[in-house]
Amino acid sequence: MSDCIFCKIIEGSIPCTKVYEDEHVLAFMDIAPLSKGHTLLIPKQHVKDIFEMPEDVARNLYAAAPKIANAIKKAFNPQGMNTLNNNGALAGQTVFHYHLHFIPRYGEDDGYKVRWEAKKDEFTPEQLKALAEEIKENLNQ
Amino acid sequence: MSDCIFCKIIEGSIPCTKVYEDEHVLAFMDIAPLSKGHTLLIPKQHVKDIFEMPEDVARNLYAAAPKIANAIKKAFNPQGMNTLNNNGALAGQTVFHYHLHFIPRYGEDDGYKVRWEAKKDEFTPEQLKALAEEIKENLNQ
Repeated sequence: MSDCIFCKIIEGSIPCTKVYEDEHVLAFMDIAPLSKGHTLLIPKQHVKDIFEMPEDVARNLYAAAPKIANAIKKAFNPQGMNTLNNNGALAGQTVFHYHLHFIPRYGEDDGYKVRWEAKKDEFTPEQLKALAEEIKENLNQ
Repeated sequence: MSDCIFCKIIEGSIPCTKVYEDEHVLAFMDIAPLSKGHTLLIPKQHVKDIFEMPEDVARNLYAAAPKIANAIKKAFNPQGMNTLNNNGALAGQTVFHYHLHFIPRYGEDDGYKVRWEAKKDEFTPEQLKALAEEIKENLNQ
């Protein structure tokens, strides 16, 4: 039996507050919500993070994302919504089964805040081109 | 002609530093990166945000996400990666053509920081169940 808490939720051995389910995905309320309606979407197939996610799993996962976002929007009429996915402990991942957060936003000071320090002056157009080349060399490997 | 800057990038009338392109999506370097390798993934079809995204557009968009994440990881060896998508000005959206950010993370103080204030004590299990019911009532409408 898996030690993964999200796999146990999928199996039903740990309860969750379910919002949506289909053949490929499960969506349920985050038990430690940042805001009213904070929901998680996970693939039923255990994948640790976005790096381990096969293309078909990604495809079937995100197919459900707009309908979940819209249902949350219709239910609670937020002013905006952030969707985010954290990969690796440094990036804030605490459960190592890929999950996508839907965080409805109701105001500037509603518990979720990003410090967004763009480093435009540190990266010249030439440097960005060089970085893009490095990424392209690593595609399809 | 569209006034959307990302549609102009797709058409080629505004340049970008391209990382990946297929029939459905385009990925390019963010010109104001938060960290080395900060990349954007957009659907070629103009959709304002996740709420307006048809299921097939979502499916084809996220199909490309793992390969882009892995190419960035292989290129720069970050310790983690956040992927996020902002919907609505309050949530930080500044270009109103859906885009998914890939933000490689190199350390705690690398320019991207989330204040994550979980409100676990403010939402009881009963309240979460009631919220889930509201969301479920708004699915498939």
